[in-house]
Amino acid sequence: MMETINLRDKLATFDETWAPKIIGALNGQHVKLAKLEGEFVWHAHEHEDELFLVIDGELTLEFRDREVHLAAGELCIVPRGVEHRPVTSTGASILLFEPEGTAQTGGVESELLADEQHWI
Amino acid sequence: MMETINLRDKLATFDETWAPKIIGALNGQHVKLAKLEGEFVWHAHEHEDELFLVIDGELTLEFRDREVHLAAGELCIVPRGVEHRPVTSTGASILLFEPEGTAQTGGVESELLADEQHWI
Repeated sequence: MMETINLRDKLATFDETWAPKIIGALNGQHVKLAKLEGEFVWHAHEHEDELFLVIDGELTLEFRDREVHLAAGELCIVPRGVEHRPVTSTGASILLFEPEGTAQTGGVESELLADEQHWI
Repeated sequence: MMETINLRDKLATFDETWAPKIIGALNGQHVKLAKLEGEFVWHAHEHEDELFLVIDGELTLEFRDREVHLAAGELCIVPRGVEHRPVTSTGASILLFEPEGTAQTGGVESELLADEQHWI
Protein backbone atom coordinates (compact mmCIF):
# COMPACT_ATOMS: atom_id res chain seq x y z
CA MET A 1 0.00 0.00 0.00
CA MET A 2 0.94 3.66 -0.15
CA GLU A 3 2.27 3.33 -3.66
CA THR A 4 1.23 4.75 -7.01
CA ILE A 5 -1.13 2.44 -8.90
CA ASN A 6 -1.43 3.42 -12.57
CA LEU A 7 -4.66 2.05 -14.01
CA ARG A 8 -3.49 1.84 -17.63
CA ASP A 9 -0.19 0.20 -16.64
CA LYS A 10 -2.13 -2.41 -14.66
CA LEU A 11 -4.57 -2.96 -17.55
CA ALA A 12 -1.64 -3.58 -19.88
CA THR A 13 -0.60 -6.62 -17.82
CA PHE A 14 -3.49 -8.85 -18.92
CA ASP A 15 -5.72 -9.56 -21.90
CA GLU A 16 -8.41 -11.94 -20.62
CA THR A 17 -11.95 -10.66 -20.67
CA TRP A 18 -14.47 -11.18 -17.84
CA ALA A 19 -11.60 -11.99 -15.49
CA PRO A 20 -11.39 -9.21 -12.87
CA LYS A 21 -7.99 -8.60 -11.27
CA ILE A 22 -7.57 -7.14 -7.80
CA ILE A 23 -5.46 -4.00 -7.54
CA GLY A 24 -6.37 -2.72 -4.09
CA ALA A 25 -8.18 -3.41 -0.81
CA LEU A 26 -9.69 -1.03 1.70
CA ASN A 27 -12.35 -1.21 4.37
CA GLY A 28 -13.29 -4.78 3.42
CA GLN A 29 -13.72 -3.79 -0.23
CA HIS A 30 -11.70 -4.73 -3.28
CA VAL A 31 -10.74 -2.45 -6.15
CA LYS A 32 -10.55 -4.45 -9.37
CA LEU A 33 -9.81 -3.95 -13.04
CA ALA A 34 -11.49 -5.93 -15.80
CA LYS A 35 -11.64 -6.07 -19.57
CA LEU A 36 -15.04 -6.81 -21.04
CA GLU A 37 -16.18 -7.79 -24.50
CA GLY A 38 -19.59 -9.00 -25.66
CA GLU A 39 -22.27 -10.06 -23.19
CA PHE A 40 -21.99 -11.38 -19.65
CA VAL A 41 -24.70 -13.40 -17.89
CA TRP A 42 -27.72 -12.07 -16.03
CA HIS A 43 -26.99 -12.19 -12.32
CA ALA A 44 -27.37 -10.38 -9.01
CA HIS A 45 -25.29 -10.16 -5.84
CA GLU A 46 -27.49 -10.85 -2.85
CA HIS A 47 -25.51 -8.88 -0.28
CA GLU A 48 -23.12 -6.69 -2.26
CA ASP A 49 -23.49 -3.34 -3.99
CA GLU A 50 -21.17 -3.02 -6.99
CA LEU A 51 -19.65 0.03 -8.66
CA PHE A 52 -18.69 0.05 -12.37
CA LEU A 53 -16.42 2.88 -13.58
CA VAL A 54 -15.52 2.85 -17.28
CA ILE A 55 -11.89 3.69 -18.06
CA ASP A 56 -11.88 2.95 -21.82
CA GLY A 57 -14.61 1.98 -24.25
CA GLU A 58 -18.34 1.87 -23.62
CA LEU A 59 -20.44 -0.36 -21.40
CA THR A 60 -24.17 -0.94 -21.16
CA LEU A 61 -25.58 -2.23 -17.90
CA GLU A 62 -28.85 -3.96 -18.71
CA PHE A 63 -31.43 -4.13 -15.95
CA ARG A 64 -34.80 -5.86 -16.21
CA ASP A 65 -36.55 -2.48 -16.58
CA ARG A 66 -33.93 -0.20 -18.14
CA GLU A 67 -30.46 0.18 -19.59
CA VAL A 68 -27.67 2.42 -18.32
CA HIS A 69 -25.03 3.49 -20.85
CA LEU A 70 -21.53 4.31 -19.63
CA ALA A 71 -18.60 5.87 -21.49
CA ALA A 72 -15.10 6.58 -20.18
CA GLY A 73 -15.25 8.67 -17.01
CA GLU A 74 -18.76 7.50 -16.13
CA LEU A 75 -19.86 5.22 -13.33
CA CYS A 76 -22.95 3.41 -12.10
CA ILE A 77 -23.68 1.72 -8.79
CA VAL A 78 -25.73 -1.50 -8.92
CA PRO A 79 -27.48 -2.09 -5.59
CA ARG A 80 -27.44 -5.54 -4.00
CA GLY A 81 -30.20 -7.84 -5.19
CA VAL A 82 -30.70 -6.08 -8.52
CA GLU A 83 -30.35 -8.31 -11.58
CA HIS A 84 -28.00 -6.90 -14.16
CA ARG A 85 -26.10 -7.89 -17.28
CA PRO A 86 -22.99 -6.04 -18.52
CA VAL A 87 -22.86 -5.82 -22.32
CA THR A 88 -20.34 -4.09 -24.57
CA SER A 89 -20.07 -4.13 -28.34
CA THR A 90 -17.00 -1.87 -28.38
CA GLY A 91 -15.16 -3.63 -25.60
CA ALA A 92 -14.48 -1.83 -22.32
CA SER A 93 -11.90 -1.57 -19.58
CA ILE A 94 -13.47 -0.92 -16.20
CA LEU A 95 -12.72 -0.38 -12.54
CA LEU A 96 -14.91 -2.29 -10.09
CA PHE A 97 -15.43 -1.55 -6.44
CA GLU A 98 -17.16 -4.25 -4.41
CA PRO A 99 -16.82 -6.17 -1.12
CA GLU A 100 -14.04 -8.71 -0.79
CA GLY A 101 -15.34 -12.15 -1.70
CA THR A 102 -18.07 -10.96 -4.06
CA ALA A 103 -18.95 -13.87 -6.38
CA GLN A 104 -18.51 -12.78 -10.00
CA THR A 105 -21.84 -14.20 -11.18
CA GLY A 106 -23.59 -14.15 -7.81
CA GLY A 107 -23.70 -17.95 -7.93
CA VAL A 108 -25.07 -18.26 -11.48
CA GLU A 109 -23.43 -21.07 -13.48
CA SER A 110 -21.66 -19.77 -16.57
CA GLU A 111 -18.77 -20.69 -18.79
CA LEU A 112 -17.78 -17.04 -18.44
CA LEU A 113 -17.15 -17.49 -14.71
CA ALA A 114 -13.48 -16.78 -14.14
CA ASP A 115 -11.11 -18.78 -11.99
CA GLU A 116 -10.12 -17.45 -8.60
CA GLN A 117 -9.44 -13.73 -8.79
CA HIS A 118 -5.82 -12.71 -8.43
CA TRP A 119 -3.91 -9.60 -7.48
CA ILE A 120 -1.93 -7.88 -10.18
CA MET B 1 -29.06 4.70 -8.07
CA MET B 2 -28.73 2.80 -11.34
CA GLU B 3 -28.06 5.93 -13.31
CA THR B 4 -25.09 7.25 -15.27
CA ILE B 5 -22.81 9.44 -13.17
CA ASN B 6 -20.40 11.45 -15.32
CA LEU B 7 -17.40 12.50 -13.26
CA ARG B 8 -16.52 15.62 -15.27
CA ASP B 9 -20.15 16.79 -15.34
CA LYS B 10 -20.30 16.44 -11.56
CA LEU B 11 -16.97 18.24 -11.12
CA ALA B 12 -18.30 21.14 -13.20
CA THR B 13 -21.03 21.78 -10.61
CA PHE B 14 -18.71 23.20 -7.95
CA ASP B 15 -15.55 25.25 -7.56
CA GLU B 16 -14.66 25.09 -3.86
CA THR B 17 -11.42 23.37 -2.98
CA TRP B 18 -10.98 20.93 -0.06
CA ALA B 19 -14.76 20.47 0.06
CA PRO B 20 -15.55 16.87 -0.96
CA LYS B 21 -18.96 16.22 -2.48
CA ILE B 22 -20.71 12.86 -2.26
CA ILE B 23 -21.73 11.28 -5.57
CA GLY B 24 -22.46 7.70 -4.55
CA ALA B 25 -22.87 5.24 -1.68
CA LEU B 26 -22.31 1.50 -1.56
CA ASN B 27 -21.58 -1.07 1.11
CA GLY B 28 -21.27 1.60 3.79
CA GLN B 29 -18.78 3.56 1.72
CA HIS B 30 -19.06 6.94 0.04
CA VAL B 31 -17.77 7.89 -3.38
CA LYS B 32 -16.77 11.56 -3.39
CA LEU B 33 -15.32 14.14 -5.73
CA ALA B 34 -13.06 16.95 -4.59
CA LYS B 35 -11.01 19.78 -6.04
CA LEU B 36 -7.68 20.41 -4.37
CA GLU B 37 -5.22 23.26 -4.55
CA GLY B 38 -2.18 23.95 -2.39
CA GLU B 39 -1.58 22.09 0.86
CA PHE B 40 -3.98 20.38 3.21
CA VAL B 41 -3.25 19.62 6.88
CA TRP B 42 -1.41 16.61 8.27
CA HIS B 43 -3.96 14.14 9.58
CA ALA B 44 -4.89 10.47 9.88
CA HIS B 45 -8.17 8.57 10.00
CA GLU B 46 -8.12 6.20 12.97
CA HIS B 47 -10.54 3.62 11.58
CA GLU B 48 -10.87 4.36 7.87
CA ASP B 49 -8.77 3.45 4.84
CA GLU B 50 -9.01 6.07 2.10
CA LEU B 51 -8.54 5.81 -1.67
CA PHE B 52 -7.39 8.78 -3.78
CA LEU B 53 -7.85 8.53 -7.57
CA VAL B 54 -6.66 11.51 -9.61
CA ILE B 55 -8.97 12.55 -12.46
CA ASP B 56 -7.23 15.78 -13.53
CA GLY B 57 -4.01 17.44 -12.44
CA GLU B 58 -1.35 16.05 -10.16
CA LEU B 59 -1.39 15.23 -6.47
CA THR B 60 1.34 14.42 -4.01
CA LEU B 61 0.46 12.44 -0.91
CA GLU B 62 3.04 13.24 1.71
CA PHE B 63 3.69 10.64 4.37
CA ARG B 64 6.09 10.98 7.28
CA ASP B 65 8.61 8.69 5.56
CA ARG B 66 7.91 9.13 1.83
CA GLU B 67 5.95 10.88 -0.88
CA VAL B 68 3.62 9.31 -3.43
CA HIS B 69 3.08 11.21 -6.68
CA LEU B 70 -0.18 10.73 -8.58
CA ALA B 71 -1.17 11.92 -12.05
CA ALA B 72 -4.49 11.45 -13.84
CA GLY B 73 -5.46 7.78 -13.93
CA GLU B 74 -3.39 6.92 -10.86
CA LEU B 75 -4.56 5.98 -7.39
CA CYS B 76 -3.18 5.38 -3.92
CA ILE B 77 -4.77 3.80 -0.86
CA VAL B 78 -3.90 5.34 2.51
CA PRO B 79 -4.36 2.79 5.30
CA ARG B 80 -6.15 3.76 8.50
CA GLY B 81 -3.91 5.33 11.11
CA VAL B 82 -1.29 6.57 8.64
CA GLU B 83 -0.57 10.29 8.79
CA HIS B 84 -0.78 11.94 5.41
CA ARG B 85 -0.96 15.35 3.80
CA PRO B 86 -2.34 15.95 0.29
CA VAL B 87 -0.41 18.66 -1.58
CA THR B 88 -0.82 19.91 -5.15
CA SER B 89 0.90 22.78 -6.88
CA THR B 90 -0.95 22.22 -10.18
CA GLY B 91 -4.37 21.76 -8.63
CA ALA B 92 -6.14 18.42 -8.88
CA SER B 93 -9.60 16.91 -9.23
CA ILE B 94 -9.90 13.61 -7.42
CA LEU B 95 -12.26 10.78 -6.63
CA LEU B 96 -12.28 9.51 -3.05
CA PHE B 97 -13.57 6.20 -1.66
CA GLU B 98 -13.94 6.04 2.09
CA PRO B 99 -16.42 4.88 4.72
CA GLU B 100 -19.54 6.95 5.27
CA GLY B 101 -18.93 9.39 8.09
CA THR B 102 -15.16 9.67 7.61
CA ALA B 103 -14.03 12.95 9.21
CA GLN B 104 -12.21 15.06 6.64
CA THR B 105 -9.26 15.93 8.88
CA GLY B 106 -9.59 12.95 11.21
CA GLY B 107 -10.44 15.38 14.01
CA VAL B 108 -7.58 17.81 13.42
CA GLU B 109 -8.60 21.46 13.77
CA SER B 110 -8.10 23.42 10.57
CA GLU B 111 -9.53 26.39 8.78
CA LEU B 112 -9.54 24.14 5.72
CA LEU B 113 -12.10 21.83 7.35
CA ALA B 114 -15.20 21.95 5.16
CA ASP B 115 -18.77 22.23 6.34
CA GLU B 116 -20.97 19.18 6.32
CA GLN B 117 -20.45 17.20 3.13
CA HIS B 118 -23.30 17.26 0.66
CA TRP B 119 -24.50 15.12 -2.22
CA ILE B 120 -24.25 16.59 -5.68
